[in-house]
Amino acid sequence: MTHQLVHNGTITSPRGFSAGATFADIKAWKEKPYDLAMLFSDDPCMVAGVFTTNKIKAAPVLLCQNRIARGNSQALVVNSGCANACTGQSGAANAEQMAVSAARKLGIDASDVMVASTGVIGTQLPMEKIERSIDRIEMSPDGGHNLAQAIMTTDTVPKEIAVEFEFEGKKITLGGVAKGAGMIHPNMATMLCFLTTDAAIEQNFLQEMLQRAVDVSFNMITVDGDTSTNDTVLLMANGVAGNGTLHKDDPDAVVFQNALDDVCIDLARCIARDGEGSTKLIEAIVEGALSDVDARLAARTIVGSPLVKTAVYGSDPNWGRVVAAAGRSGAELVESKVDLYLDELCLMQAGSPLSFDVEMAQALMKKENVCFRICLNLGDGRATAWGCDLTEQYIALNGDYTT
Amino acid sequence: MTHQLVHNGTITSPRGFSAGATFADIKAWKEKPYDLAMLFSDDPCMVAGVFTTNKIKAAPVLLCQNRIARGNSQALVVNSGCANACTGQSGAANAEQMAVSAARKLGIDASDVMVASTGVIGTQLPMEKIERSIDRIEMSPDGGHNLAQAIMTTDTVPKEIAVEFEFEGKKITLGGVAKGAGMIHPNMATMLCFLTTDAAIEQNFLQEMLQRAVDVSFNMITVDGDTSTNDTVLLMANGVAGNGTLHKDDPDAVVFQNALDDVCIDLARCIARDGEGSTKLIEAIVEGALSDVDARLAARTIVGSPLVKTAVYGSDPNWGRVVAAAGRSGAELVESKVDLYLDELCLMQAGSPLSFDVEMAQALMKKENVCFRICLNLGDGRATAWGCDLTEQYIALNGDYTT
Repeated sequence: MTHQLVHNGTITSPRGFSAGATFADIKAWKEKPYDLAMLFSDDPCMVAGVFTTNKIKAAPVLLCQNRIARGNSQALVVNSGCANACTGQSGAANAEQMAVSAARKLGIDASDVMVASTGVIGTQLPMEKIERSIDRIEMSPDGGHNLAQAIMTTDTVPKEIAVEFEFEGKKITLGGVAKGAGMIHPNMATMLCFLTTDAAIEQNFLQEMLQRAVDVSFNMITVDGDTSTNDTVLLMANGVAGNGTLHKDDPDAVVFQNALDDVCIDLARCIARDGEGSTKLIEAIVEGALSDVDARLAARTIVGSPLVKTAVYGSDPNWGRVVAAAGRSGAELVESKVDLYLDELCLMQAGSPLSFDVEMAQALMKKENVCFRICLNLGDGRATAWGCDLTEQYIALNGDYTT
Repeated sequence: MTHQLVHNGTITSPRGFSAGATFADIKAWKEKPYDLAMLFSDDPCMVAGVFTTNKIKAAPVLLCQNRIARGNSQALVVNSGCANACTGQSGAANAEQMAVSAARKLGIDASDVMVASTGVIGTQLPMEKIERSIDRIEMSPDGGHNLAQAIMTTDTVPKEIAVEFEFEGKKITLGGVAKGAGMIHPNMATMLCFLTTDAAIEQNFLQEMLQRAVDVSFNMITVDGDTSTNDTVLLMANGVAGNGTLHKDDPDAVVFQNALDDVCIDLARCIARDGEGSTKLIEAIVEGALSDVDARLAARTIVGSPLVKTAVYGSDPNWGRVVAAAGRSGAELVESKVDLYLDELCLMQAGSPLSFDVEMAQALMKKENVCFRICLNLGDGRATAWGCDLTEQYIALNGDYTT
């Protein structure tokens, strides 16, 4: 790895970005300092985005997809507390109006503002509060931390990171913030992630690199299997670092891709670990699959299995559940070839159970990071997925009344 | 419907069948009268079976698939407490030995005995206890109730039914027992169902009718999305009723198919309602899908969504979760055409939220059967799926130690 962690890094660590947040009282929050925020780049940005595959897409998602198609943008306005999803034509008009208000405040064109929302589905945004509050937001070069807080819902900690590296003699910085699973009061486990960089990057290549990074990070985590109407990952590149614009055929592009992968994996792991009500991170490594696609299927099914999740919560080395989850995943698998490890402890070899040290297994299950590694011994496919345990607290968080 | 419910009906209600059960002490049960049982037909039977799609299949599943390929059988031996899955060659030998012991006791050939197991994965069967106990089982024409108890694990009630109807002037009886989700101590949510009838039915057609019935019943329920290594549905037809053998081109075959569908749907609903830790049955009806396949996808995704399940547990009319689950199911869906009903109360029409009576909605959510109906208004596809709510008790049941 050729990049380094930026101390206290966030989305405004890259040069030329500022952010700010305020409290707009969008929902009857118990305790929350901010619920509305903006991100701004002094210079126009190339922009890339990856969005929910749910056929029901929130109004702000449709708005962003439109902006991304054009390829550039300069700002983002985001709220928590209301998803602006299943809100019909009023919802679409409200998302556009958020962009208009933010653009007026920032002195740019509304078509250069992207919008994101997370929260309860099927209710309209309180537009008066939002418009009034946008005017109050103060932008600052270290405002990223406030934005990270503004997008939190049932997240227990803000999720931020930045890394820096040299590229053609220029220092490039890449920052990101994310929010994870669930709303203060129960709703879709929406995932939002905003990434910024001061590198100059060609737009199609930016989109390609973002998709690749999302595939090995956010697409490999699961909290409860529900894909939100609002899931959004945005990457803005303003080129302030002064490097020659990065293109697909540039041999050094891998340096940026690696940094982007690592930033996304770090934020994705933070989201998995902070899943609603969770106490542990589950990591599933699948090796020797017939293909990477098979490996991804198996790894995701293992970390998504309620029976695996509850076993991890109970620190129960009930390894049959891990093998059974792989078996139903759709990945090719031959029982008599399967090896299974808990950390480095082998539990099953060539399809037969080993007599293992149960106390050691329980101790490994009690760690905060529980790692299963399954070797299918069929090919070269491999993948890693992350999830969290399933606890009574998840039920309590999600069984409460919204109404 | 042309068939009638048999009072106190069970798997031994059809003529010529007997059953019995005993306690073999297969596992450290807290309280359990029986954990080992046999079913026997005085006459040889045509037999059909549907099995788990998990690539990891328990030894008894492989044994049954072998027997079914031949097409006939006369008996079944079944245990709870140990799944005999992931047990290698010893497991295969033990399943065969169960058949041998049962055959010796019943005075038939081992190749005419099917085997089923449910319980912890990765441990070997206590064969001495099992062989000794098989000798003790007393068969009786009303032994079906004891078998229904012997296969229970975390099930809170036995699941049994029988129906009867006239066919070519003969009285036909069809009986069934099932067990549902989960083990006394946590394990795979194995589903077992055994069906018997005194009708005479051609074997290929028997298999075809069983597959159809399973598709609209057991394949439309979900408790936690985990497909077991041991899931098994068996149907034995002994022909004692004296009807002319039922063939595919028989116009009256629909009478038997309807009875079989209803028996399977009844048992499937019982399994869903009695899912681990559940307090309510969730029914999802999808209408107007582009195809039945799409409708099945959407209905199953709705009842399987943890966010829908927790909302039902909390009696929270959080309908956005239902629409969002349909949206991510893979079924074709156009947001602006979707109508959603809670029982008969319309919550969303043509993609826009309606202002509904919240108190009435909460009252409907508090019922023991919560029914969502979603009309996609795209075609004629329709399907119904059943599931249960997700509660703290599910976590407690599945987070305990097995070891």
